[in-house]
Amino acid sequence: MFDRDGPVLGVDPGLSQCGYGVVRRHGRGLAAVACGVLRTDPADPLPERLATLEADLDEFLREVRPCALAVERVLFQANVRTAISVGQASGLALAVAARAGVPVTHYSPNEVKLAIAANGAAGKRQVQAMVTRVLHLSEEPPPDAADALALAVCHLWRTPLRESVARAVAAHGDRGA
Amino acid sequence: MFDRDGPVLGVDPGLSQCGYGVVRRHGRGLAAVACGVLRTDPADPLPERLATLEADLDEFLREVRPCALAVERVLFQANVRTAISVGQASGLALAVAARAGVPVTHYSPNEVKLAIAANGAAGKRQVQAMVTRVLHLSEEPPPDAADALALAVCHLWRTPLRESVARAVAAHGDRGA
Repeated sequence: MFDRDGPVLGVDPGLSQCGYGVVRRHGRGLAAVACGVLRTDPADPLPERLATLEADLDEFLREVRPCALAVERVLFQANVRTAISVGQASGLALAVAARAGVPVTHYSPNEVKLAIAANGAAGKRQVQAMVTRVLHLSEEPPPDAADALALAVCHLWRTPLRESVARAVAAHGDRGA
Repeated sequence: MFDRDGPVLGVDPGLSQCGYGVVRRHGRGLAAVACGVLRTDPADPLPERLATLEADLDEFLREVRPCALAVERVLFQANVRTAISVGQASGLALAVAARAGVPVTHYSPNEVKLAIAANGAAGKRQVQAMVTRVLHLSEEPPPDAADALALAVCHLWRTPLRESVARAVAAHGDRGA
């Protein structure tokens, strides 16, 4: 249904600010296709904000037609109120992806920072700087967009590895059979 | 768009078990129209589970055509993992309601328990027993369905009060002007 070599969409879920970043393979490297932040107005009622975010994500997925969605695995949040809000936004992103048939992979913040900055405890600024360098951007993206680009980069860098491991395991299995 | 005297849908959001209860006015009292639990299989991938829950809620809203959705205001959860999961389920319910033009009202667990059992610290069993009595049910609904029915009852009992307070305030404002 989707081009396996199509772009990868990274999403950093949030209700007020939902970062997105689209990255594709380009020669031997990677190139950013788009990045930005989807926003909803905190003055609007919560149900309308969620419906707006879902419609935006849905439209975005149809336009970009990514081959994969990379989302942050949210395990720890500063507080429960934030966790619920991030849960609401991430739930919509995952449901939209499932409806569109786009496979979803979760990465922990630690995995993403390790991939992009070789440091699992890298700060926001470091992620912004590394994303800018890796993707040859002319200017630093805002933090939420940088996190989303980092997720997409992390996915693209790790996918060939996963696939070669899967092939090796399959080959080993065949020999064993 | 929706019948103001139509049924009220209560939803107790959850990913594995999402309780629902539909209650309408009946003479001077209330009557249960339907209640139950929407389930998703914990063995399925999370995005598919969320998409399934959203589709079920969407279909349910179209069938029931409630005049209002009453949802629990989730503020405190045992842990962050639960909060994210409940956030994901509640976010879908709110987005579905906004899309269908159904107004949403949030009630805290304390408000609901106070309304149904005259005790803000009532336990699950007490809520089940009181819902069964108030709605003249032939048997006790399961806990998640009982919570959802209690939300709908709470909304129906409080709505006339809200409206008469609003009228009183408006009348007072008129006199003051």
